[in-house]
Amino acid sequence: LEKETDMGFGYSGKILRINLTDRSTQIEEPEEVFYRKYLGGEGFVAHTLLKEVGPGVDPLGPENVLIFAAGMLTGAPVGGSGRQSVGARSPLTGGFGESEAGGFWGAELKQAGFDAIIILGASEKPVYLWINRGSVEIRDASGLVGKTTAKVQQLIREELGDKRIRVAQVGPAGERLVRYACVIFDVNRAAGRTGMGAVMGSKNLKAIAVRGVQRVALAHAEIVRESAKWLSENLEGLVGRRKAYGTAGCLLPQQYTNSLPTYNFQAGEFAGAEKISGERMAETILVDRDNCYACPIYCKRVVEVDDEIKVDRAYGGPEFETIGAFGSMCGVSDLKAISKANELCNAYGLDTISTGVTISFAMECFEKGILTLADTGGIELRFGNAAASLEMIQQINDRTGLGKLLGEGSYRAAQVIGKGSEEFVMHVKGQEIPQQEPRAHHGLGLGYAVSPTGADHVHNIYDQSYTDADLPKMKSVAALGILEPLPYNTLNPAKVRLFRFEVNWMHMVNCIGLCIFLPYDYDRVRDILHGITGWNVTIWELMHVGERVLNLARMFNARQGLGIDKDILPRRFSDPLKSKTVPLEGIAQQELQQGVETYYAMMGWDPVTGAPLRSKLQELDIEWAA
Amino acid sequence: LEKETDMGFGYSGKILRINLTDRSTQIEEPEEVFYRKYLGGEGFVAHTLLKEVGPGVDPLGPENVLIFAAGMLTGAPVGGSGRQSVGARSPLTGGFGESEAGGFWGAELKQAGFDAIIILGASEKPVYLWINRGSVEIRDASGLVGKTTAKVQQLIREELGDKRIRVAQVGPAGERLVRYACVIFDVNRAAGRTGMGAVMGSKNLKAIAVRGVQRVALAHAEIVRESAKWLSENLEGLVGRRKAYGTAGCLLPQQYTNSLPTYNFQAGEFAGAEKISGERMAETILVDRDNCYACPIYCKRVVEVDDEIKVDRAYGGPEFETIGAFGSMCGVSDLKAISKANELCNAYGLDTISTGVTISFAMECFEKGILTLADTGGIELRFGNAAASLEMIQQINDRTGLGKLLGEGSYRAAQVIGKGSEEFVMHVKGQEIPQQEPRAHHGLGLGYAVSPTGADHVHNIYDQSYTDADLPKMKSVAALGILEPLPYNTLNPAKVRLFRFEVNWMHMVNCIGLCIFLPYDYDRVRDILHGITGWNVTIWELMHVGERVLNLARMFNARQGLGIDKDILPRRFSDPLKSKTVPLEGIAQQELQQGVETYYAMMGWDPVTGAPLRSKLQELDIEWAA
Repeated sequence: LEKETDMGFGYSGKILRINLTDRSTQIEEPEEVFYRKYLGGEGFVAHTLLKEVGPGVDPLGPENVLIFAAGMLTGAPVGGSGRQSVGARSPLTGGFGESEAGGFWGAELKQAGFDAIIILGASEKPVYLWINRGSVEIRDASGLVGKTTAKVQQLIREELGDKRIRVAQVGPAGERLVRYACVIFDVNRAAGRTGMGAVMGSKNLKAIAVRGVQRVALAHAEIVRESAKWLSENLEGLVGRRKAYGTAGCLLPQQYTNSLPTYNFQAGEFAGAEKISGERMAETILVDRDNCYACPIYCKRVVEVDDEIKVDRAYGGPEFETIGAFGSMCGVSDLKAISKANELCNAYGLDTISTGVTISFAMECFEKGILTLADTGGIELRFGNAAASLEMIQQINDRTGLGKLLGEGSYRAAQVIGKGSEEFVMHVKGQEIPQQEPRAHHGLGLGYAVSPTGADHVHNIYDQSYTDADLPKMKSVAALGILEPLPYNTLNPAKVRLFRFEVNWMHMVNCIGLCIFLPYDYDRVRDILHGITGWNVTIWELMHVGERVLNLARMFNARQGLGIDKDILPRRFSDPLKSKTVPLEGIAQQELQQGVETYYAMMGWDPVTGAPLRSKLQELDIEWAA
Repeated sequence: LEKETDMGFGYSGKILRINLTDRSTQIEEPEEVFYRKYLGGEGFVAHTLLKEVGPGVDPLGPENVLIFAAGMLTGAPVGGSGRQSVGARSPLTGGFGESEAGGFWGAELKQAGFDAIIILGASEKPVYLWINRGSVEIRDASGLVGKTTAKVQQLIREELGDKRIRVAQVGPAGERLVRYACVIFDVNRAAGRTGMGAVMGSKNLKAIAVRGVQRVALAHAEIVRESAKWLSENLEGLVGRRKAYGTAGCLLPQQYTNSLPTYNFQAGEFAGAEKISGERMAETILVDRDNCYACPIYCKRVVEVDDEIKVDRAYGGPEFETIGAFGSMCGVSDLKAISKANELCNAYGLDTISTGVTISFAMECFEKGILTLADTGGIELRFGNAAASLEMIQQINDRTGLGKLLGEGSYRAAQVIGKGSEEFVMHVKGQEIPQQEPRAHHGLGLGYAVSPTGADHVHNIYDQSYTDADLPKMKSVAALGILEPLPYNTLNPAKVRLFRFEVNWMHMVNCIGLCIFLPYDYDRVRDILHGITGWNVTIWELMHVGERVLNLARMFNARQGLGIDKDILPRRFSDPLKSKTVPLEGIAQQELQQGVETYYAMMGWDPVTGAPLRSKLQELDIEWAA
């Protein structure tokens, strides 16, 4: 292909394939059309999993395949391009496992000459990978075992003699196969969901160190630069609040709308909310702000505490999800304790959402007398007991005491604990629910129910409610043809339609490796991608890539036996959420079921199996997946 | 709504509703969201027909509804904006009737303050409408009856004392209910297909004269101007050939690829092709070129002949479709005779495609001895007999001799003639097939089969074949995600997918009133529409408008009893098309059936009834159509 034609400018890239069992490596160079069809990130993950991981493969066995993938945007000199995906069959859900993280590792990987790494087999002894300017080495990691993430990063950099090395790693929790262990990048960014750290740990792969110097190629650099310029010139107006308070800035808005998950989703308002807000953090323990590759927003927090509780700034600061999970969900209003929980999770490689929500679940069990002091080893595991929460994190990481069971995830724990706890364990498909309240946005409830990864905040959309007064909010979706108001408390066909469009887009965003917090509209995303690749893509094509990848994930789940009986919500969400000022209606089981059926029909999915019909696979040019 | 928000700049328009039975008129002002959902043209037609024309309504009775509709682009100061639609239940197909034409009438209608006219009932006596700067008058047309179109236009302009009046009218053929009579604009532009002239004639409505002075409003005039500038600056490179030879420029390329319909589709090569080409026309009888509103291309031909045969330049010159129908299809290689046929059809208000193809059919009957000299009244109705062809046009218009039967359309004529002629009558759903050879593009065959209007060249796409060598052609569809070559002779899922995307777009183009010959890519069409309306539309939204309107048309057909048994092709297309240089494969019945089934499934249509499923209507925000 010629340079700068509409079909591209001859994009070519490399995918590294490593078999840890026989220590072989292989470099693949897919055709450009492969890149355009799957775009990277979640797209590469879905493609690889469906092609290479058969039904019934043990998620924690050597037959599982672990994928690290950058996207087409990753490493481009424009805000939002600092993301990468990790994927495998999930030990938490048994289905499609995939999670994204920000930072610098993915950009470094591309600068080292690779778009993705596919890891097969398992090493007999602990190893780490050293990917250095196009070369790859499998190195001994016995000296890194059991160490916390910051220490491991330091040791690797010292061993290899380069401070600029970027490290992806599994913490001790992943080594010990905690089912919601995560992959940690740069010590303080987590590909948190679906237990990718446990898969990495099961392969005896402690870390992947990368270093590259080759700039990411741009077809039309000036187009990319224009968006970078636009963002930095309009930063305050567009994302000033996120810059000032990070993701934690959304805590108080949720509190004021009765949608801050509290006490294991028993309430939407938390008395201690103001004490754990992003605003309060900025006034107290915040010492710095941090960014991802090429991003001018600096939404990442850096906190430091030197009190009774000590918090190491190397691990950053808590995101909103972490504050919700360890704060309002556990009834804890001590920001320092929450920051400590964040530090521990990052140091051990634990997903803060699943860890916090699992502890919140255990607290409700304790308060209801289902778990006793005998079960907890004497810990008063009550809502509000911050010290107990920190102790449970330690036990989960150490796989000791009650933590051993909780490290299997709240869903499996509830099966063991029984006594009615199965009724209030807050999960979908075995994955704990993030800190976005579906009763405030019924479409979000549908999203949790049908997401291929189980309850997930990055494969979903937060707000799908538009009243007549919401013209500014409606503007963004008008571009998709959503032209009429949609109240929060419906799953009518119009809502499902919006949901379908936005979720398709969201999956595309997870393919290109774009951060969801960037204030780019559809056209700008298209322009940036065009600038990078030279491809004359349309929103139409991009929407179909998202839908393609979602359908691959769905096919993967069908093959692993996840049927429509798994597309459900915990019963609790059918209860209304009381409030003096903002009472919210529950999502009735029948409403949800109707919404799910409408969604299947619109998606071209079999109403009996929930799997994509052949005609849908044909339309999406993935008939090979049938 | 405020000016220039993403939801629009407060677009408002008027639709005129006239009941010819009781002579009442009414002005409707739909909400902006209606305009955004249906965009005008075919969209308004489909919306109105499904809402207002029930099952079994006689197409030629007063209960049929006749719609004239401009689109959102019509009348904007940019090339391609000079089009309008006419719609009603078709007397030819019994289903969705809709046809577009270029010229100046639609732009004038908008300048007169209206986006569309909906005509109900029927007048007792012949009338015409006079729409003058926002006002409307129903006037006596008894002095116009039976007169040719140029004469009628002249008489109306004289009567109303304004030479700048634009006239839409039905010719004598429409008055006499020839089933493929058309509506003629500006004397030489025809809304040719589906018999809209017969519907207009059945209402005793001879003409609609319009005059307006109010410029079409533009939200962002500079965006519209930019495209106008781009077009005129790049005219030669982009459309130089079309400018030089008009649509007739595609005759020789079709001849050289064995795809010039010849002798009623018995061949794809015509020995006389060079004599009737656009190039030959330019060298001989061409005296001028003509344009539509705001268009710099000037693709319309103006010819003059002052020989034995005399051709009046007022009626323009023959388009490619006319040359094909009266030329290669009838075996006539005399460009002057073909131009005369064109003149007669425009003067009488006959669709040149249906007229020519019906005569071609009759010629094959004659050659095969199925029609005899007794049937033709002594006319040697052989292929190549130009005089016979002209005589048949006269008889069809006069409804005399064999012409009386042929004026019912070739399909109905074949039912009467019998003797095996049903096997080679070249129609779909009763409408004669245009001069594009489906065996050269099997996707076009699918398009003829499933089009809601029957065989139609404006609800379809010509070329869906892309080989590895066709990078320039692939560029345009790559933007839709069509990334791999598609040979001409397949209806595989990839082909059907492309077909679905492009046909959705085509219907959208017919809604906004954009000429299909403009060299605008998807983004430019979007930009122009944005410039006119202020709406921040995406290609995603626009594709869905096209699909929405197509589904409404399909629902209309289902309600009128047109099921999947009508989504077929004449048997002849399953024969190969022989040629020494470019032999073409036929479209096997099984291949077509498979393609149709794939298409239904991708479209979300019921495989048994062929009607859209409820989930599809929900997705398209037209659940009201269920």
